[in-house]
Amino acid sequence: MSPDGTMRAEAASDDGMGRLSRTGFEPALLRLIGPWLGSARMPVVACGMVGSRQGWVEAPYATVPCRPLPGALVAAPVTDPRIDVRVVPGVRQLDPADVMRGEETQIAGFLATTPGFDGVICLPGTHSKWVQVSAGEIVSFRSFMTGELFELLSTASVLRHTVGEGWDAEAFVQAVSDAMSRPEAIAARLFSIRAEALLKGLDPSVARARLSGALIGLELAGARPYWLGQDVALVGAPRLSAIYAAALGAQGVPTRAADGAAMTRAGLAAARLATMETTR
Amino acid sequence: MSPDGTMRAEAASDDGMGRLSRTGFEPALLRLIGPWLGSARMPVVACGMVGSRQGWVEAPYATVPCRPLPGALVAAPVTDPRIDVRVVPGVRQLDPADVMRGEETQIAGFLATTPGFDGVICLPGTHSKWVQVSAGEIVSFRSFMTGELFELLSTASVLRHTVGEGWDAEAFVQAVSDAMSRPEAIAARLFSIRAEALLKGLDPSVARARLSGALIGLELAGARPYWLGQDVALVGAPRLSAIYAAALGAQGVPTRAADGAAMTRAGLAAARLATMETTR
Repeated sequence: MSPDGTMRAEAASDDGMGRLSRTGFEPALLRLIGPWLGSARMPVVACGMVGSRQGWVEAPYATVPCRPLPGALVAAPVTDPRIDVRVVPGVRQLDPADVMRGEETQIAGFLATTPGFDGVICLPGTHSKWVQVSAGEIVSFRSFMTGELFELLSTASVLRHTVGEGWDAEAFVQAVSDAMSRPEAIAARLFSIRAEALLKGLDPSVARARLSGALIGLELAGARPYWLGQDVALVGAPRLSAIYAAALGAQGVPTRAADGAAMTRAGLAAARLATMETTR
Repeated sequence: MSPDGTMRAEAASDDGMGRLSRTGFEPALLRLIGPWLGSARMPVVACGMVGSRQGWVEAPYATVPCRPLPGALVAAPVTDPRIDVRVVPGVRQLDPADVMRGEETQIAGFLATTPGFDGVICLPGTHSKWVQVSAGEIVSFRSFMTGELFELLSTASVLRHTVGEGWDAEAFVQAVSDAMSRPEAIAARLFSIRAEALLKGLDPSVARARLSGALIGLELAGARPYWLGQDVALVGAPRLSAIYAAALGAQGVPTRAADGAAMTRAGLAAARLATMETTR
């Protein structure tokens, strides 16, 4: 990135905490950014599971209420003199117990690009987060295993035979509504997707929308204290945010959306700026 | 089995619909029962997924309301003259869509060994069933993906790092109660098991009981119309039935338990008897 946070180049890989040992992070990073390095030491700012106990270096959690980037970044051990790697700490909540790593950076990016924002941010994904933000601080948050449940159920459960590609927007909104009105029936509702496929030839694209709607509706029922009577900012992958916007819109909740990747970059730039100010 | 249904020998394998092609069932059976065969043709009665569309032979569903063994068994194609294989049909419900294969045989076995039973049978397992029985008929039923969710979450999700061996009975009952009072929070409650492990060193045996309690409590919340004010008969594996008995007992619901394997044998014996009477 340029000093002002503009992206100059991008690289990605599937390497991460799940695949790498502690000493594997530096080589994995150098494989990606080696071509960008010169003789001067390159500052690198990292966020997410790279800062977990099983990551490159543990960056201890800050505790809510706190700003999304409350403290010093944590230096990761490196052997290559061309890089200086700093890791953004995650954020935790003690009661109910909850944690985030990476989303705090997206929240910081959203707040940097939306000055004066007060309200609720939803970050849909593997472990969706609902976050109450006030006066620049994360006040409270709650994570839902929605994305991971969808992944497991659609690829590894009996529903894998039933859920196909494609999408049915009407079936999705109906499933959201059904799940919100009877969230306790979720485990039966999931099986009924399989049964309808067997007995009534349920279309695989309808099944996909039904599964997604059942799980997102369940999440909305559980997150109701967060969104009821609020404007909600969705920060995530655009396709997923659009699905959440449809679900929330059907409940009369207005949303705005910001691209998760762009918010991560804006947050990393803000973290870098704060570090420079601290060390200056 | 003897003609009166007494078990004379037992054999088991992991071969089943998930692993076998249509032509693989007969060799798989012969590997198990070959030593029992003589020169006379041996009657074999089978139930479960062996009768599904991907099984040995499709045994079309009976539709509720119906007796658990309402009609003729379906002959499976065999090449070995020493066996005569008949498959028990499954049972379906059109609205809400639901299916069972194998449980109808356990229900038949339970009714054969508990004459005059009227009430609710719960068959806990991968896809737990709650079944309303009246005057010897299955009136209605509902399947819950509880066991499959437990398996996926404890072995393939982020919770696999957190859920260990062992059991904490108190944590289980508390988790059942929490899930029943706020079933809509399930996806957040699941993530909080992970967060408590990270932040508070949650014991792996407590985590296991909490995960189980959250999912069984969710099922009980969804199945409330079945068990409220009823005596419940639990038909399943004794360890699992004991866990359900604890959960239901904490809600003031009396239960009795019958061993699932014994009920399967009793049901198969009843099916065999009915076949003999039909063909006599």
